[in-house]
Amino acid sequence: MLNQSLTINGAATNTDSIFSFNPCLAPRITPPPPPPTTPSFFFSMNQSTKQNPLLSSSSSLKHTTPVFASQASRVTHETSPSKDDEPVHGLSEVIVGVLGGGQLGRMLCQAASQMAIKVMVLDPLENCPASALSYHHMVGSFDDSATVREFAKRCDVLTVEIEHVDVATMEMLEQQGVDCQPKASTIRIIQDKYLQKVHFSRHAIPLPEFMQIGDLEGAKRAGELFGYPLMIKSKRLAYDGRGNAVAHNEEELSLAVAALGGFDRGLYVEKWAPFVKELAVIVARGRDNSILCYPVVETIHKENICHIVRAPANVSWDIRKHATDVAYKAVSSLEGAGVFAVELFLTGDGQILLNEVAPRPHNSGHHTIESCYTSQFEQHLRAVVGLPLGEPSMKTPAAVMYNILGEDEGEPGFILAHQLIRRALSIPGATVHWYDKPEMRKQRKMGHVTIVGPSMGDVEERLKSILKEEGSDCKAAVTPRVGIIMGSDSDLPVMKDAARILNMFGVPYEVKIVSAHRTPEMMFSYASSALERGIQIIVAGAGGAAHLPDAKGCSSCDSCNKQCYQCRFACSKDDGDS
Amino acid sequence: MLNQSLTINGAATNTDSIFSFNPCLAPRITPPPPPPTTPSFFFSMNQSTKQNPLLSSSSSLKHTTPVFASQASRVTHETSPSKDDEPVHGLSEVIVGVLGGGQLGRMLCQAASQMAIKVMVLDPLENCPASALSYHHMVGSFDDSATVREFAKRCDVLTVEIEHVDVATMEMLEQQGVDCQPKASTIRIIQDKYLQKVHFSRHAIPLPEFMQIGDLEGAKRAGELFGYPLMIKSKRLAYDGRGNAVAHNEEELSLAVAALGGFDRGLYVEKWAPFVKELAVIVARGRDNSILCYPVVETIHKENICHIVRAPANVSWDIRKHATDVAYKAVSSLEGAGVFAVELFLTGDGQILLNEVAPRPHNSGHHTIESCYTSQFEQHLRAVVGLPLGEPSMKTPAAVMYNILGEDEGEPGFILAHQLIRRALSIPGATVHWYDKPEMRKQRKMGHVTIVGPSMGDVEERLKSILKEEGSDCKAAVTPRVGIIMGSDSDLPVMKDAARILNMFGVPYEVKIVSAHRTPEMMFSYASSALERGIQIIVAGAGGAAHLPDAKGCSSCDSCNKQCYQCRFACSKDDGDS
Repeated sequence: MLNQSLTINGAATNTDSIFSFNPCLAPRITPPPPPPTTPSFFFSMNQSTKQNPLLSSSSSLKHTTPVFASQASRVTHETSPSKDDEPVHGLSEVIVGVLGGGQLGRMLCQAASQMAIKVMVLDPLENCPASALSYHHMVGSFDDSATVREFAKRCDVLTVEIEHVDVATMEMLEQQGVDCQPKASTIRIIQDKYLQKVHFSRHAIPLPEFMQIGDLEGAKRAGELFGYPLMIKSKRLAYDGRGNAVAHNEEELSLAVAALGGFDRGLYVEKWAPFVKELAVIVARGRDNSILCYPVVETIHKENICHIVRAPANVSWDIRKHATDVAYKAVSSLEGAGVFAVELFLTGDGQILLNEVAPRPHNSGHHTIESCYTSQFEQHLRAVVGLPLGEPSMKTPAAVMYNILGEDEGEPGFILAHQLIRRALSIPGATVHWYDKPEMRKQRKMGHVTIVGPSMGDVEERLKSILKEEGSDCKAAVTPRVGIIMGSDSDLPVMKDAARILNMFGVPYEVKIVSAHRTPEMMFSYASSALERGIQIIVAGAGGAAHLPDAKGCSSCDSCNKQCYQCRFACSKDDGDS
Repeated sequence: MLNQSLTINGAATNTDSIFSFNPCLAPRITPPPPPPTTPSFFFSMNQSTKQNPLLSSSSSLKHTTPVFASQASRVTHETSPSKDDEPVHGLSEVIVGVLGGGQLGRMLCQAASQMAIKVMVLDPLENCPASALSYHHMVGSFDDSATVREFAKRCDVLTVEIEHVDVATMEMLEQQGVDCQPKASTIRIIQDKYLQKVHFSRHAIPLPEFMQIGDLEGAKRAGELFGYPLMIKSKRLAYDGRGNAVAHNEEELSLAVAALGGFDRGLYVEKWAPFVKELAVIVARGRDNSILCYPVVETIHKENICHIVRAPANVSWDIRKHATDVAYKAVSSLEGAGVFAVELFLTGDGQILLNEVAPRPHNSGHHTIESCYTSQFEQHLRAVVGLPLGEPSMKTPAAVMYNILGEDEGEPGFILAHQLIRRALSIPGATVHWYDKPEMRKQRKMGHVTIVGPSMGDVEERLKSILKEEGSDCKAAVTPRVGIIMGSDSDLPVMKDAARILNMFGVPYEVKIVSAHRTPEMMFSYASSALERGIQIIVAGAGGAAHLPDAKGCSSCDSCNKQCYQCRFACSKDDGDS
């Protein structure tokens, strides 16, 4: 039924069309014009959001609230016609309605509470993660038309935290003037993975070759064209790896198709992407079409579920730029405000291929809460209510996010999760998020830990100690107390004597090449983290007249017997620079 | 009535005692032994919090909930004797009861929501700032014994966000085994400012000389002893400057005393502290007595209300160390877990004098939400529920916090606040907090803005542009496009030719001395922020063979026509270091 109003140029119904990222094969469609380059500007609530047409046309419906949860008594807001004339109290008085109340909805509510923006959620589970933190929780299905329509009456703007919503109703509501951000057209494209690929292919976004399959013959033809292993995917209701199956040869095709529920489910195949890394970019678009991109991150999946995110991704500038370009272009082809997550493959030969897009905050952006000037959740709210977009860059040099997935069912799972949390709580720079899901299930996303710090090496080491991986404990046993650093290995013949003497006295030390000129960032990070890592003395050598700055401890911590984690430093020497 | 059980060695009733910070005059009392220096260790919920004795003795009371607000239906937790045997779901299942539900309670709830820790608040206002975000809001007075006792039955640990609570009831509850953090003894000392000074004086904490006054004769005697201006203070219920009055000469004494409500109110005087700066330190103590100190900040008051906080304080290392020592010592003398704010005076001759202590999160620590690894609110919760303390140091080099105070009553005040918020929302690195107080009043704390960034100069410049102060607008009009930098002013004779040519072509430029050796932090900050500040070309000069690193733009932003705010850089040159 949802496919009835499919309007993407009819391409989606053309079984056996092959789509390729090869520009020679891909349909030549002029990309949309870039958004205006003027800085984001401020929309006041009254300009940017329309009067809720459902309320103005049938305001008597407002007080029929049979499906509201315990907070129903708080339904006191009046979207009265006089709203335009009243001053805004705080940041915005727009009431944001979110379809879905999982952990993404919960974190949206947390960001909203800081700004005192009212967020309502629609979710079928009475104790869904967002319930306790929302302004209102309407208990009901976001895939049920009557419920979504009822919900929309109570909101000034409608957004999503999950794409598997009743998009036909959203389209109908939009036609009636309801403000949906992002637009229903975007949700329609995203929620059907095949349609999504067709759309991006038509906009010349590089992606793995793909084709629709309607029967076993079609699947075999695809296998011949693309080779094996072959990725078979459900078009709809697929996430966290559900809806994907791999056939390693032609014989496995029937099994893979059966595992996905058969051809009637709606299937397509993708050529295997020989990726070396998976990358992701959160892209935010304001109501004025201004677009800002978060730093490119690396995502590490385990059994198709996001496991670890590293920010920023350890890839070259060229690849970051390329990945950002692709993400920017992909989001530019979609309509509406909000944040979008663009998942990408990086291949061995440096190609960036689009995997898929989520029209909402995303697991790959959780780190932004602690590591970026504006979190993806605040950004999504700023975008949908019409506030200017916030700065998306990182305020800490490195972050790593680790998903707390259920390792077992029920109480044993809770015990394992709590053990991990206990370790995380004693790690400097680690923040633990717990989603308060009432039931523990294997592989379920129960919470996450973000660790921020002065370098990726540092935060990864901390993560290892949370995960009790090899290397961390033994490293602690031989923590160096002296750092021998020099600007170049040409200084080594002189500096090795320092190491020799430390060896004689049995003092643990480390030797590093750290140049103030060639690797200033590393030097900065080295000096900033030295004390915290237990370094008590730095022996610095450099040729010529170069001087290395003093590393000083933060005096504010000396007294409490704890070394400073991010000390500042300044050189007291007053002689020439060169 | 509250004074009946006063047990601080009887000193408080000794009218006309003079207390001085001079070690020669101050009572020689051995300071308490320092806390153990072993790292904070983890208390599981079951070890660290006692079974609620009120519930176990009269569990039938649990279901009489006449004073609960709309969320009463959620009272479903069972503090059953079998709790010890059940695994903890998430971080902690301790239910935290907070006396008070203002903005501090609100921000405690926000921190708690991330950790899924349940926080109940007791506050007389139905729509107090914490109400909507708390697990439960009990509507009632935190200064009423029956209400506090009823509230305590529902919590596993009792804490405060305001010190003006019914401490006699807290003491009684503690005797019955209720877990109060910090201890009632601490609240008792803090809530009477005179008693507080007596306490700290007896613990050899440096503070301005002070004495109690009972009549005009006593006040005159104090004036003769301490000189004028003389600070007269109410002992109790004083905050944000309320309860303070200054007499500039003997004639003004009566007027000042009358302004404070007369001698019956309970008054004392303090010798005028000739401070050059006001500093503050947030100190956290865990249930295991581990103590961690946050960086020293500078607080700027306007009409006795906190106006701006700068973190870290721009003072020497020695002063930071001294201030931290005093704060550490002050908190060591008090009992119980939680965060404490220690307000200090820095005098012209480098002395640190204690002003006062708050046994709770504090306005001077709001910046920690964005700027520190662990916010003061998360830290307070970790402390009172018995989790290990988090890292308190800063994750950004600089932060400035600006209080949004009511500038006018009612709607005109809301309009002014919204205008300020609009400007703040477009400033990179600025985060706006709005407390959702239903009524706007002059000088009322309605929200705050925290700006974090690469240097104090940078965040102060941004604050200026929010406050529309002089310098910012005109600066924007002549944003330099070229940066001429050199390692030393000895390079100026050569470099001035570059400036001359830019002048000829009318290209705006800036000239700076930035040394990779002597001022590496400044160089780092310069290179990191150059693009964001609009610098398109850097002309770098240095003597000898020294090279300045290339400043590269963050490629992730090139594509979206926005320059990177915190770009990374690395030198591609491969020649020697010196």
